[in-house]
Amino acid sequence: MLSTTARTTLNRAKDRGRTDRTDLHAVLDAGLICHLGVIVDGAPMVIPTGYGRIGETLYLHGSTGATSLRAGDAAPVCVTVTHVDGIVLARSAFHHSVNYRSAMIYGHARIVDDPDEHVAGLRAIVEQFAPGQWDVVRPPTRKELAGTAVLALSLEEASVKVRQGPPKDDDGDYDLPVWAGVLPLVVSWGEPQADPLLAPGIPVPAHISARG
Amino acid sequence: MLSTTARTTLNRAKDRGRTDRTDLHAVLDAGLICHLGVIVDGAPMVIPTGYGRIGETLYLHGSTGATSLRAGDAAPVCVTVTHVDGIVLARSAFHHSVNYRSAMIYGHARIVDDPDEHVAGLRAIVEQFAPGQWDVVRPPTRKELAGTAVLALSLEEASVKVRQGPPKDDDGDYDLPVWAGVLPLVVSWGEPQADPLLAPGIPVPAHISARG
Repeated sequence: MLSTTARTTLNRAKDRGRTDRTDLHAVLDAGLICHLGVIVDGAPMVIPTGYGRIGETLYLHGSTGATSLRAGDAAPVCVTVTHVDGIVLARSAFHHSVNYRSAMIYGHARIVDDPDEHVAGLRAIVEQFAPGQWDVVRPPTRKELAGTAVLALSLEEASVKVRQGPPKDDDGDYDLPVWAGVLPLVVSWGEPQADPLLAPGIPVPAHISARG
Repeated sequence: MLSTTARTTLNRAKDRGRTDRTDLHAVLDAGLICHLGVIVDGAPMVIPTGYGRIGETLYLHGSTGATSLRAGDAAPVCVTVTHVDGIVLARSAFHHSVNYRSAMIYGHARIVDDPDEHVAGLRAIVEQFAPGQWDVVRPPTRKELAGTAVLALSLEEASVKVRQGPPKDDDGDYDLPVWAGVLPLVVSWGEPQADPLLAPGIPVPAHISARG
């Protein structure tokens, strides 16, 4: 079950709430980037960044010099992952909406110190971008590891919201001569584009081409 | 020109920075949702929400009861819009990246009081979802307007970052027998799905079908 703290309990549109951890995992596992919220000099900062999940921990990465990561260490953060599935076109302006799946995670992040967890976190982040990549690429050097901070965030306090389906119009509006429905947004992979500097004779690996 | 405050000046990967207002407008105008960062009880909160742009002002909306909008009134906020264009697959784990376009806007938001600006802001938000919709749907009633808050945020302080193109690997890695390149992410519109409750004889309007 997901948490029931004040900020993870929906006040409005309660029917959009999900309460199962598998719903949280599904939203996270389907994403590519998250938006990390931190406080810097008293103001919020929202940074798009990569992430990966291992069990009930989310890993985020960035340069050790990045303001966002320094601000996120031992500080309260919010990480949000959002999928837009379509535009909901209603008969009234008021009832326009979006079909989406989103997860919000709250907590105090920590910069990962343990060397094994550091590498595991980076692996999770690369694998989130492209499952199967980690084992075929050159692993990080000690110097690269030293320059790449990894933030860890527990999934303990999280909420999930999902809206799917057709518009919900006011009773009196269904007779209006206005088209209503959903315009789906489709996200897909394009054809892999080889690096112009790729040495000859290296085919696109199956774990990449199979996604297309 | 975009602003050059401390938080909108890139410390790292400076070649990804854009400095022209037209770059900012292009990123915003191509988006569907933003991520709004506010501070609630001393912790960041990152909320996905709709938005629209009129000139150099961004409009965001939500229920008047929403915590996020109350927290954003006259308070520092950060709004981020991100497009993921592809996954950058390098020869080393370290150089994996994402091709993206993103905009971050900082400022103090205000809840719109002026009735004309209120409607104009809502119109911009609906039109961002579906250009052409506002003029064909039932306009908001006085009661609906009273229940829908609109936040306005100046685009004065903003930064834009763009990364495109192939991976950049270390010199010594180009001889590795590892495929490298970009796996593009393609976002497109699907077939419009009519509301099951749609009255017969109402065709999909051109401003919707033409997007597909």
